[in-house]
Amino acid sequence: MAYIELGVSEAQYPGIIGLLETQPRTGRVLSELADVLLRAPHTLTPGERELIAAYVSGLNNCQFCCNSHSAIAAAQMDEGMRLVERVRTDLAGAPISEKLRSLLRIAGAVQESRRAVSPDMVAAARVQGATDLEIHDTVLIAAAFCMYNRYVDGLGTFAPDDPGAYAQKAQNIVEKGYVESIT
Amino acid sequence: MAYIELGVSEAQYPGIIGLLETQPRTGRVLSELADVLLRAPHTLTPGERELIAAYVSGLNNCQFCCNSHSAIAAAQMDEGMRLVERVRTDLAGAPISEKLRSLLRIAGAVQESRRAVSPDMVAAARVQGATDLEIHDTVLIAAAFCMYNRYVDGLGTFAPDDPGAYAQKAQNIVEKGYVESIT
Repeated sequence: MAYIELGVSEAQYPGIIGLLETQPRTGRVLSELADVLLRAPHTLTPGERELIAAYVSGLNNCQFCCNSHSAIAAAQMDEGMRLVERVRTDLAGAPISEKLRSLLRIAGAVQESRRAVSPDMVAAARVQGATDLEIHDTVLIAAAFCMYNRYVDGLGTFAPDDPGAYAQKAQNIVEKGYVESIT
Repeated sequence: MAYIELGVSEAQYPGIIGLLETQPRTGRVLSELADVLLRAPHTLTPGERELIAAYVSGLNNCQFCCNSHSAIAAAQMDEGMRLVERVRTDLAGAPISEKLRSLLRIAGAVQESRRAVSPDMVAAARVQGATDLEIHDTVLIAAAFCMYNRYVDGLGTFAPDDPGAYAQKAQNIVEKGYVESIT
């Protein structure tokens, strides 16, 4: 049960959803940030950006965010959940482009701690064709999920165990986006 | 020097400033979040909320954010920089209210890693009179600075050593806020 009184059912509004719904002051801008980072037009597809979000959330052991963004990534990539799980468990061997692999390595370094991103990692991404914008957004997506993950777990919110619960909500996000999914 | 080409002088636009200015897509919403969390009407004063931001940024060893928000907190608290530095170096002994001390302990737990906030910490804050809203915002401010700090350092931006550089910019933030301070 969450550490603060949400005034809604946590089974119905699990994880960050109850927080976004019941704290519209902050919920609106947090949802706008997610739309800008994960859904706005970009050279990285929405599926690739959601994969970065899922990967970082997994490293932070945030069950709600990792399951949610894994499902949202899977719903927007031809290879589906099998690829998402492979990336999360075996980044070095996953069948993805070398550019995306190098960006995920940068994202993992951002998650670890301050200044863990090295000039060598950035140079490796550039060799694989990553642009300044792609490197910028990878770092900011990874940093943002270090926020979302801590927000969700720091307030002790509820995370369902059933994968089906996430798949259903993922479809809603894919269709409507983050801001429009807040009731 | 930052890992990506900013197109502006880093001496003139250090730390997050160059990123917010040159990436308006994300800069606008990141600045709005800072205004909502640190400046909007609240039972915690802007000085107290900036102190939470400075404290977490110090724990993350983010020189630019820690110096910036220390200066912004000091400019809005009667006790000034001396109190900010005392909190950052000696939280247990700093002359602040027990409520603020208990909230800063929660903020420190959020910085550490996922789920480090315990029910006991939250109960201790409640005993000192902390409200649900104050606990919520403390967790989210701490989480948000785990994002801002990683964004600033993950992209290798420049942080001035001169404290005077931060004091001058702090005055601008105190007067105009975050969104309005972007040119």
